[in-house]
Amino acid sequence: MPNDSRTAQAAEVLVAVFGVRPVTLGARTAGPADGNPGEKRATDQGLQILLWRRAKDPDAGRWALPGGLLLPDEDVDSSARRQLAEKVDLTQVAHLEQTGVFSAPHRVPGVRTIATGFLGLVPLDADPAIPDDTAWHPVDTLPPMAFDHSDIAARAHLRLRGKLSYTNIGFALAPAAFTIATLRRIYATALGHDVDPTNLQRILSRRGMLAPTGTTASPGPAGGRPAALYKFAVTDLRVTDPFAAFRPPDAR
Amino acid sequence: MPNDSRTAQAAEVLVAVFGVRPVTLGARTAGPADGNPGEKRATDQGLQILLWRRAKDPDAGRWALPGGLLLPDEDVDSSARRQLAEKVDLTQVAHLEQTGVFSAPHRVPGVRTIATGFLGLVPLDADPAIPDDTAWHPVDTLPPMAFDHSDIAARAHLRLRGKLSYTNIGFALAPAAFTIATLRRIYATALGHDVDPTNLQRILSRRGMLAPTGTTASPGPAGGRPAALYKFAVTDLRVTDPFAAFRPPDAR
Repeated sequence: MPNDSRTAQAAEVLVAVFGVRPVTLGARTAGPADGNPGEKRATDQGLQILLWRRAKDPDAGRWALPGGLLLPDEDVDSSARRQLAEKVDLTQVAHLEQTGVFSAPHRVPGVRTIATGFLGLVPLDADPAIPDDTAWHPVDTLPPMAFDHSDIAARAHLRLRGKLSYTNIGFALAPAAFTIATLRRIYATALGHDVDPTNLQRILSRRGMLAPTGTTASPGPAGGRPAALYKFAVTDLRVTDPFAAFRPPDAR
Repeated sequence: MPNDSRTAQAAEVLVAVFGVRPVTLGARTAGPADGNPGEKRATDQGLQILLWRRAKDPDAGRWALPGGLLLPDEDVDSSARRQLAEKVDLTQVAHLEQTGVFSAPHRVPGVRTIATGFLGLVPLDADPAIPDDTAWHPVDTLPPMAFDHSDIAARAHLRLRGKLSYTNIGFALAPAAFTIATLRRIYATALGHDVDPTNLQRILSRRGMLAPTGTTASPGPAGGRPAALYKFAVTDLRVTDPFAAFRPPDAR
């Protein structure tokens, strides 16, 4: 299919990686020249996204999603995994999925570049080593972002919130074992509103998604009865609540 | 971001358009040279997909999804709409969504071409005029397809089946007004297994997706009480069954 539109065109992948992580409140102190980000005060947890700061024009100084150009011998999914591995330890990314194609003609200056957007999720107990130009940012107070990256991040955030309500995608944000209080905090943080812990436990248990580990958490500073620990029984993405009537007969 | 991988590369869109349509049983008689597809005997309804037959190499004679190369001034969504309008009256396509990027390095011969796949749906009462090289094909007996188009069609079919179980996507396959018997036939056909009509009506009604039109269908040849007609109350895509506990407080 020879056609002029095939020339001077590039394909890139861009990943919005989210995790529930400690939020630093107050101004961050300036770090020394070696890139040390300075003192942090961990006071609360919030949904955060992994961004790197562009050093060069175009959009120098703006924050960008990890990713880059597709190589000749890879497809977009392997490209996303490869490029993520360059920013963060990939074994700590528990879920990765395409969110859509971003292809407005002038979304980046110069050569036309078509992006495949991805959603990536990192569990609460992962603490991936990240390069000096990279940092976690709370989703409510995102800095100015390069190109259309804020649209790509917003699409991924919307996908995450949607899938929390009809799939088991919470497995990819939760640690290996957790109390219901922790799970509630993860869901409330990712959804952006409070969640009733009793309902949360009942809904996920009824759908076979939650299993007790048989162990308990060590009691907090206030003492009291130690809380039971749970794990996700299924750790690949499933629609947890299809209408029963529409399931194939052999899946009932 | 100058890089060699940006040269000699193309982007295309490919749409898997599905509709529930009369199935022709038995061998189709050969049509005359003008492309007339010959006599059909309409005996039943089935889920069908719109394909066109490639006249030229590569893959001459094989059936392909409608679509083609992205133009410099359009994004993939407008390209899909434009190219579909060239094959079928677009006002009759009730739903169109991206299903994913197909980017295996050698998926088509020659210049590397990256495809954005789409799912398109046509309602039961639409009868779009289609060109001579284009025909509806039952999804259970698909002919040999060009390139990786059968993978793109399979992905769209899977997406349709999934969304029938947790969204109102049936609106895009159903006619403007329908009996529950017709709706059951549409769902059973699209899902590939039988569906209980009482459950179907109860589930969709409880979620506010089904509304009576206040009229009845004309009685069939067997006579009997005329059946009530219904319509979809919401005709844009919604997740119909999010866990109530996870909805934001103002949506309860």
